[in-house]
Amino acid sequence: MAIPNLQVALDHSNTAEAVAAAVSVGNEIDIVEAGTVLMLEVGSEVVQILRKLFPDKPIVADTKCADAGTTIARNCKNQGADIMTCICAAEVATMTSAAKEIDHIQVELYGDWTYEQAQEWLDNGIEQVVYHQSRDALLAGVTWGEKDLEKVQKLIDMGFKVSVTGGLNLETIELFKGVDVYTFIAGRAITEAENPAAAAKELKDKIKELWA
Amino acid sequence: MAIPNLQVALDHSNTAEAVAAAVSVGNEIDIVEAGTVLMLEVGSEVVQILRKLFPDKPIVADTKCADAGTTIARNCKNQGADIMTCICAAEVATMTSAAKEIDHIQVELYGDWTYEQAQEWLDNGIEQVVYHQSRDALLAGVTWGEKDLEKVQKLIDMGFKVSVTGGLNLETIELFKGVDVYTFIAGRAITEAENPAAAAKELKDKIKELWA
Repeated sequence: MAIPNLQVALDHSNTAEAVAAAVSVGNEIDIVEAGTVLMLEVGSEVVQILRKLFPDKPIVADTKCADAGTTIARNCKNQGADIMTCICAAEVATMTSAAKEIDHIQVELYGDWTYEQAQEWLDNGIEQVVYHQSRDALLAGVTWGEKDLEKVQKLIDMGFKVSVTGGLNLETIELFKGVDVYTFIAGRAITEAENPAAAAKELKDKIKELWA
Repeated sequence: MAIPNLQVALDHSNTAEAVAAAVSVGNEIDIVEAGTVLMLEVGSEVVQILRKLFPDKPIVADTKCADAGTTIARNCKNQGADIMTCICAAEVATMTSAAKEIDHIQVELYGDWTYEQAQEWLDNGIEQVVYHQSRDALLAGVTWGEKDLEKVQKLIDMGFKVSVTGGLNLETIELFKGVDVYTFIAGRAITEAENPAAAAKELKDKIKELWA
């Protein structure tokens, strides 16, 4: 079992803070994500900045694309993104048209997606998904538990590379021990820590320890 | 039955073209939308430009928000948007937290949404939806038909203000005659016409004629 990647989600509302956060934690993380909040607020140029700063790391544009897959993927790729996200409610045609323009598509699992839909994504060459606890659900008191582990394991068994995200910290990552998670995505747990680089290193060290 | 609004969706990939298109058709349309492609590419500042250009028209930020409702709604409101969209796959908590920050939320109906979910949105004060043919589905050969009219009518009967969008033209708008549509949203049918203002006027005149 490979050691899961650690991805930092930059969900600031301005470029300066996002870039500063990325630089401060860049040595500790494997994948850099321009978050949806950030992209909607400052546009895709921030992806280009991240590309220049981290020429050797995968860059995710978290567009949660629901339509116009070709155009959005082309725009993200032009700025240097390797990976782009689509929302699970998008038509498969949106995902596959985006997939023609950029290296990888990740499907963001929100709401009532089904395994039948997931199989259709796989059958169309879409092999990465992001399993979420939504931030708003977490704020409403939802927590990680056995049902999440089962769903993540089932998606892995189907053949997906599964990223996991939503209020992750040292304790919640420990729940996934023994599960072949592809990537853990952390946002505020890193970027709003007193020492973001130390927080990222602590998460990565914990992942290495648990998956060694 | 009120005469449906005409909304122009600006889905350009740069601010200059979007603003030029908005100015050219501004006299003919009722509502101006900063489209998802545009916002992801240039950020929310374009909403502020549209606000200044059209102080008396509703401005829609088509964020298709899936999470972090409070932050995204606040950012859109700060730039002057009146209306923001959420994707149907978002948690209700995302919609209601966004609704606290901005005048109106519209739920974008993509994929396998259900009337049970729609009722839950209504029960939580979310009263506007956008009924779609996705652009990628249209490119794959899907067309408007009776099944769409039935779904739109059912949503209206439930109590929603329903906007309708996706490859609309003079003929497809005619299909909706007698249906209490809140708003027709057109993008390329207006912005890529040889004479965008004339195309917008023609659509609006057709709407007025059919709903008179």
